[in-house]
Amino acid sequence: MNITALAGGIGGARFLVGLLHHLSVRRDKYAGAKVTVVGNTADDITLYGLRVCPDLDTVMYTLGGGIHDEQGWGRAHETFTVREEFAAYEVAPDWFTLGDRDIATHIVRTQMLRSGWSLTDVTAALCARWEPGVTLLPMSNEPVETHVVINDPDSAESSDGKRAIHFQEWWVRLQASVPAQEFVFLGADQAKPAPGVLEAISDCDAVLLPPSNPVVSIGAILQVPGVADAIRTTAAPVVGVSPIISGAPVRGMADACLRAIGVQTNAQSVAAHYGARLGGGLLDGWLVDEQDASLAASPGMVTRARPLLMIDTETSAAIAGAALDLAVEIKA
Amino acid sequence: MNITALAGGIGGARFLVGLLHHLSVRRDKYAGAKVTVVGNTADDITLYGLRVCPDLDTVMYTLGGGIHDEQGWGRAHETFTVREEFAAYEVAPDWFTLGDRDIATHIVRTQMLRSGWSLTDVTAALCARWEPGVTLLPMSNEPVETHVVINDPDSAESSDGKRAIHFQEWWVRLQASVPAQEFVFLGADQAKPAPGVLEAISDCDAVLLPPSNPVVSIGAILQVPGVADAIRTTAAPVVGVSPIISGAPVRGMADACLRAIGVQTNAQSVAAHYGARLGGGLLDGWLVDEQDASLAASPGMVTRARPLLMIDTETSAAIAGAALDLAVEIKA
Repeated sequence: MNITALAGGIGGARFLVGLLHHLSVRRDKYAGAKVTVVGNTADDITLYGLRVCPDLDTVMYTLGGGIHDEQGWGRAHETFTVREEFAAYEVAPDWFTLGDRDIATHIVRTQMLRSGWSLTDVTAALCARWEPGVTLLPMSNEPVETHVVINDPDSAESSDGKRAIHFQEWWVRLQASVPAQEFVFLGADQAKPAPGVLEAISDCDAVLLPPSNPVVSIGAILQVPGVADAIRTTAAPVVGVSPIISGAPVRGMADACLRAIGVQTNAQSVAAHYGARLGGGLLDGWLVDEQDASLAASPGMVTRARPLLMIDTETSAAIAGAALDLAVEIKA
Repeated sequence: MNITALAGGIGGARFLVGLLHHLSVRRDKYAGAKVTVVGNTADDITLYGLRVCPDLDTVMYTLGGGIHDEQGWGRAHETFTVREEFAAYEVAPDWFTLGDRDIATHIVRTQMLRSGWSLTDVTAALCARWEPGVTLLPMSNEPVETHVVINDPDSAESSDGKRAIHFQEWWVRLQASVPAQEFVFLGADQAKPAPGVLEAISDCDAVLLPPSNPVVSIGAILQVPGVADAIRTTAAPVVGVSPIISGAPVRGMADACLRAIGVQTNAQSVAAHYGARLGGGLLDGWLVDEQDASLAASPGMVTRARPLLMIDTETSAAIAGAALDLAVEIKA
């Protein structure tokens, strides 16, 4: 069985841990199953001259056993000597925390990119160390950068009181406290899906949309020309897992993102945003939390309610298993 | 009084510590004295995509109070997390030790260079933090790289059994254990002295050649077109301090370098290698260790014998003071 998942950072990574655990426990049923992950790269940023790919690294570290578990991002047993030195040199920005172990990854990546390697090949090389148990593909080898349009009446840079900032500045520095007016995926229209991305979606047995941010994670991947079409037209069933439980995001600040695109923060509205494949959208199946079982079913897709809180590997595995079961049921 | 010194790494840096200490203790005599240091950049190397300037950094860290004292290079209170990660990624080379604090310097430098800053300006910016008490100038803003020609009968890359390797590979990885056949200063013929270098030599009251390696440190600086001529023609007295005591280098492997260029490892031969300005060479004065007092004086230069072992700041200061005194005596 070939499974393809789209993924952002923490939510996607934890879902994937559950998926691999489920495939391993149920190897009677899924012997030889392979998972391909299409990772969001629109959060990527160049800091201190180093190329940082937060979502790819979160997936890689999490599945490779190197993640800081409680935090959900960054490395376990991390040290911060380089950051101390940056502060002593007074180099900006000081709002993005990079640990020494993490920086080593970015140095290796940056060197390879500058030597002409594609991000696909760099990611494969880094994964050779981490052995994440999946094939991790960047969504594109061309730069796509999510920028956030905010109101900034004091900005000297604009006449209309609006200003676009890098997603990370909005997310990390401002903690999404300033309302996003709009998301702009710079470069997306020129980007091509990375090698293997469209094939992974077209030639698989199930496409899964984990509970990642539907706007800036999954949403960014869908901006790459061809990706949404591949999902619409694949022969495989497409099943999504709601990142919203009882009207609130499980983690992160998805509500602030949904608000900007005019989507209400509830499982039903996110499903409608993705849309049913029957109606030209993306989903055949949709998992919602059991607290949301009473919401009206989303037209055109098979909706199932079950506990969606990913507390540990077991609960994540149960969710991934339910998503797989739903895909198999839809295909049958 | 304006003093200009050429400098390599450890030996030069320790001499400069002594010089600044002497100027401070004798501020009655040297009030307002300024020191300009022309640093060797031919040992520079790009590792992991980061530009490393070992000699500039050794001078900067030493005078700025950040050096690892016993070691003489690298940072005090250093950590090695990034190196651990490089090893885990199996990225080469593994023979050049970079600590986390040191790497931060290289990241900042590399980012600035890639943004279009000259090495002169980058060095000034880094020194804004370290306040070394001198104006530290790279010898050139163009890349000059010392390569070492060695015999390597097994080399697949050459037909004559010779191979050129980067100086750092010979010095650090091979510990100069393979005889150098020749030093090649790649790029030197195309290099221009960095802004301020020729002026610092021409318009000063004393030029000092500290006990740095006469072949690959001072010698490399002299390869930059115009530098040797500026020393030959400056109105200031030029005084050198022998890096060789009693037929052996005080530290480092200067003997292995001298051998390659056919110069014997003794104070007299190094003086003859530099040559007397009276005979078209570089030196007016030459300090040798008191153990070498019985050697024949070098023709055309004023030679003084005194203890030259730099054990601590006091002894270094005494040596620097003696060099200055000799310069003043020659000028008078």
